[in-house]
Amino acid sequence: MSTTVILTKAEFLTHWLGHRALTRRTIEKFPEPDLFSYNIGGMRTFADLIKELLSIAEPGLRGIVQQKEEPYNHDIPLNTKADLLARWDEDTPKIIELFGQIPEEDFHKDYNLFGEYKFPIYSNLLYFVDNEIHHRAQGFVYLRALGIEPPFFWDRG
Amino acid sequence: MSTTVILTKAEFLTHWLGHRALTRRTIEKFPEPDLFSYNIGGMRTFADLIKELLSIAEPGLRGIVQQKEEPYNHDIPLNTKADLLARWDEDTPKIIELFGQIPEEDFHKDYNLFGEYKFPIYSNLLYFVDNEIHHRAQGFVYLRALGIEPPFFWDRG
Repeated sequence: MSTTVILTKAEFLTHWLGHRALTRRTIEKFPEPDLFSYNIGGMRTFADLIKELLSIAEPGLRGIVQQKEEPYNHDIPLNTKADLLARWDEDTPKIIELFGQIPEEDFHKDYNLFGEYKFPIYSNLLYFVDNEIHHRAQGFVYLRALGIEPPFFWDRG
Repeated sequence: MSTTVILTKAEFLTHWLGHRALTRRTIEKFPEPDLFSYNIGGMRTFADLIKELLSIAEPGLRGIVQQKEEPYNHDIPLNTKADLLARWDEDTPKIIELFGQIPEEDFHKDYNLFGEYKFPIYSNLLYFVDNEIHHRAQGFVYLRALGIEPPFFWDRG
């Protein structure tokens, strides 16, 4: 596709990494027990929402790069805040590395994400970020309900 | 900028409109009184969050197109669910029209959004969508707390 670029591949990655930095700060704000036990309205705990994000970002990208359509597994054995943050930090450089391996020419090719969601790769990647924003925002409400001020939404540094 | 396009202008718009459809369905799910009175942890009501979105999307785009740096005003006099939905529906075709007027070549030019936020236009537009996902997700938690099932996150039709 050759027309004017409205968003470069590098800009998309920077955008995503900014969101990851904000999500990391959101995890940090939770008191340890609440991270694994607090919920509202029968929803999942914030730790479980974070495990979903962990099971999508790096594994999803790896699937795209290696063309392996393995199902996702949200049930990751991470049981402390330090474990969640350590995995988050381990995944970030892997995400940068894997994202870099997707040729720009492939962003409009279909990929059957997790063997289930067949969409163009650009659409899969937008979903990763959207889903992270969505679940992190739920964490913001949990924090407010716990009387804790969330990080600033616009701060992505 | 001439390299391979990872996301076209039309795809970005389709992505945004899909989110707008989902946000509209989220408004519809709220019982009228809760929309204007229910909150968690001292946060704004979902009606107030929607007014913020209304004060950003169409006015922000209009500012970009007309190069007017007017401040935003979240305090919009809409006091019923029907009013909020009607304004949402009025704005959608305006958004399509205004978005279409932004030349692809301009997406990397800086624009001082609302006279306050000086970023490239692509970054302003990503913020509009991110902020909508963020606040809508907070509405999802309100709905769950009220015992109401939110719409499906992945359904953008």
